[in-house]
Amino acid sequence: MINGQIAVSEAMEGRLSPEMSALQEQVQKLQAELQAVRENMPDNRLTMVVFSGDLDRVLAAFVIASGAAASGMEVSMFFTFWGLTALRQKRQSAGKTLFQKMMGWMTPVGLPGMGVSKMNFGGIGAKMLRAMMRQQSVPQPEEMAQMARDLGVRMIACQMSMDVMGFHKEELIDGVEVGGVAAFLGEAVRSKSTLFI
Amino acid sequence: MINGQIAVSEAMEGRLSPEMSALQEQVQKLQAELQAVRENMPDNRLTMVVFSGDLDRVLAAFVIASGAAASGMEVSMFFTFWGLTALRQKRQSAGKTLFQKMMGWMTPVGLPGMGVSKMNFGGIGAKMLRAMMRQQSVPQPEEMAQMARDLGVRMIACQMSMDVMGFHKEELIDGVEVGGVAAFLGEAVRSKSTLFI
Amino acid sequence: MINGQIAVSEAMEGRLSPEMSALQEQVQKLQAELQAVRENMPDNRLTMVVFSGDLDRVLAAFVIASGAAASGMEVSMFFTFWGLTALRQKRQSAGKTLFQKMMGWMTPVGLPGMGVSKMNFGGIGAKMLRAMMRQQSVPQPEEMAQMARDLGVRMIACQMSMDVMGFHKEELIDGVEVGGVAAFLGEAVRSKSTLFI
Repeated sequence: MINGQIAVSEAMEGRLSPEMSALQEQVQKLQAELQAVRENMPDNRLTMVVFSGDLDRVLAAFVIASGAAASGMEVSMFFTFWGLTALRQKRQSAGKTLFQKMMGWMTPVGLPGMGVSKMNFGGIGAKMLRAMMRQQSVPQPEEMAQMARDLGVRMIACQMSMDVMGFHKEELIDGVEVGGVAAFLGEAVRSKSTLFI
Repeated sequence: MINGQIAVSEAMEGRLSPEMSALQEQVQKLQAELQAVRENMPDNRLTMVVFSGDLDRVLAAFVIASGAAASGMEVSMFFTFWGLTALRQKRQSAGKTLFQKMMGWMTPVGLPGMGVSKMNFGGIGAKMLRAMMRQQSVPQPEEMAQMARDLGVRMIACQMSMDVMGFHKEELIDGVEVGGVAAFLGEAVRSKSTLFI
Repeated sequence: MINGQIAVSEAMEGRLSPEMSALQEQVQKLQAELQAVRENMPDNRLTMVVFSGDLDRVLAAFVIASGAAASGMEVSMFFTFWGLTALRQKRQSAGKTLFQKMMGWMTPVGLPGMGVSKMNFGGIGAKMLRAMMRQQSVPQPEEMAQMARDLGVRMIACQMSMDVMGFHKEELIDGVEVGGVAAFLGEAVRSKSTLFI
């Protein structure tokens, strides 16, 4: 018996182990490869560039953002160029170049000042859209934006656009983060969808 | 011999099984994890939001949709805001508010009434684009749209936009589905690419 | 001993192998499935459709492209419709229809001729944007485009748009590839993000 056990033990080490350890190695390799795949998988995340400063497009962005956040997705909105105006809460001229002052005066302060992208007719289009939304009991654009914030949607203002256009952080609504293209890309590559609006 | 076999059996259960059952557990865990990864992988699917009502942008959407469907992808197009006009087949005023009637009259009925996004000059730009396409034997926008439908591209009209703008389902072309932002997100998260056009 | 070894050997083949070969099969199946998943994973890649011919939008595209390429991503930009004008380096009328000649004369030659999408006022808006960028020591749009090229961003001109609008390859800047919707989709499905700009 003792001899037999030694024989078994030797047999296992001498004959069985090659197969066994080959399998173990394969399984370990699979674990490492699967781990790499999982790290490369997108999160349950949606990223948007809001480039447009038109009420209708910005509204679409907030509706999608709210819907995604409500369904449990992580949502980040990067506001750049004209999109930055959606984050403004006041006009300010201190510390700006002449062109930046002009830019500040000529562009809307938040959603209330925005026009629609087509048939705006000096603001009539935007007013009409708002009235039509009210008639259908659809929340106003400002409420949609607030809903997105309440649902945890992150709002990031593009640093380069702020520098160029002269929008200072204190002119923007509270809770806005500031980031660059690297921050955007970092979110985008981990997202299931990325939209440019 | 009989004793030897018992010894082997015991040895296998007593000495081999720990390794073996550890491996089995690891393999089962791998199978479960891989299954989770596979369920989280995007389908061979393309989703688009068609927000624009400009002929050139809508045309680009249909060209991409047809190409994707022809290559075997599942394609869904969500028409929202101005994009809804691409799905209209007639004007109708019954059961609409004044603003909805105005919206209905001022916006195009399908692709034939659409202008291009730049240099439209009251419709001349759209006519010129169509003529240039004809001269190069490129199918007209309406044919591109029909091709997309024939290839199984799903067309979904945005419920909220229909409500606000007052476009009723019977005004839209046949075969159009109606859905909301949740339906869009459900497709987008399973898609390899999502475009906002 | 010899008998014992035979017994072990038989026992292993007769009793152990079923478990072992079952495990081996499972591991092989896992390997194949994981390989399929890996082939279906997106590359570290970003694909863009540049549809717009507005300086601000094209600039945003180049900024994102440069940032992505600098971070090690493979980046492809597909220029279509108005976006094609970003790739032009000269005007040429030979071998064009009347409409194509008109199109060639009415559209900008590269970024220097482009206006901005809002408040352009016949080119003043574009000049103002350029001045504001200069004042903040932000590279000019042409430098951003060159940076993208230097970083290995691929620029692909849409074949169908070239045919329709009559832009010949020799009118475009050097190093531009020509491709169709199939080429775009081939890149898009392997990309982590796809943007329509």
